[in-house]
Amino acid sequence: MRNPINLKHKAQSIDEHWSPKVVAAVDDNFVKVAKVKGEFTWHEHEEDEFFMVLDGTLKIEMEAETVTLKQGEVYVVPKGVRHKPSSSDECLIMLFEKQSTLHTGKTKSALTKDIKDQLSSS
Amino acid sequence: MRNPINLKHKAQSIDEHWSPKVVAAVDDNFVKVAKVKGEFTWHEHEEDEFFMVLDGTLKIEMEAETVTLKQGEVYVVPKGVRHKPSSSDECLIMLFEKQSTLHTGKTKSALTKDIKDQLSSS
Repeated sequence: MRNPINLKHKAQSIDEHWSPKVVAAVDDNFVKVAKVKGEFTWHEHEEDEFFMVLDGTLKIEMEAETVTLKQGEVYVVPKGVRHKPSSSDECLIMLFEKQSTLHTGKTKSALTKDIKDQLSSS
Repeated sequence: MRNPINLKHKAQSIDEHWSPKVVAAVDDNFVKVAKVKGEFTWHEHEEDEFFMVLDGTLKIEMEAETVTLKQGEVYVVPKGVRHKPSSSDECLIMLFEKQSTLHTGKTKSALTKDIKDQLSSS
């Protein structure tokens, strides 16, 4: 990372929904951005997952509750908690999670991206 | 963390400059916010440190270069790199770093805050 990166611009430049791109490594974690719309798949991780909404509104359904994040708001889905993110309109988000975390967790689906696909080219 | 948190509002509510508050834990990392103005001390960490500017402009001087972050921009200061953050006007920032990271690194100064002082009360 040679220069500061504007996260919203980076997320806006992604072509495909639910296809996170790695922006930076922080020790053994990755900072990622994603452009999302519609429903993701129910899944869980063995690590915590940090969400920040850069633009739009993100709903995170969990089995015990549902939270709605507006622009500038953050939330951590604890490890082991099944969750399904969704957004009726397009939404830009930042994620912070272990480098080992797969974005669909243990649930492989048509939406699952390999980590190689998540590495940003710039 | 029971509910989504607005980072800018949280940072704005801090009384003292250069006094980061923990917003959330993400595995073995902390998400913190801080309100800063003026010059911090030169220091380094044994871990990477992620900066995001929520409002205002942050300058990070390093020995080899200086970067300037505007609102919405992020930068990672690599482990071991001596750096001095500063801001001529008040600036709100988010930090992401290992829970073990002391904000002044190995450099104890009048600005050094104990981690207990960084834990947010809400």
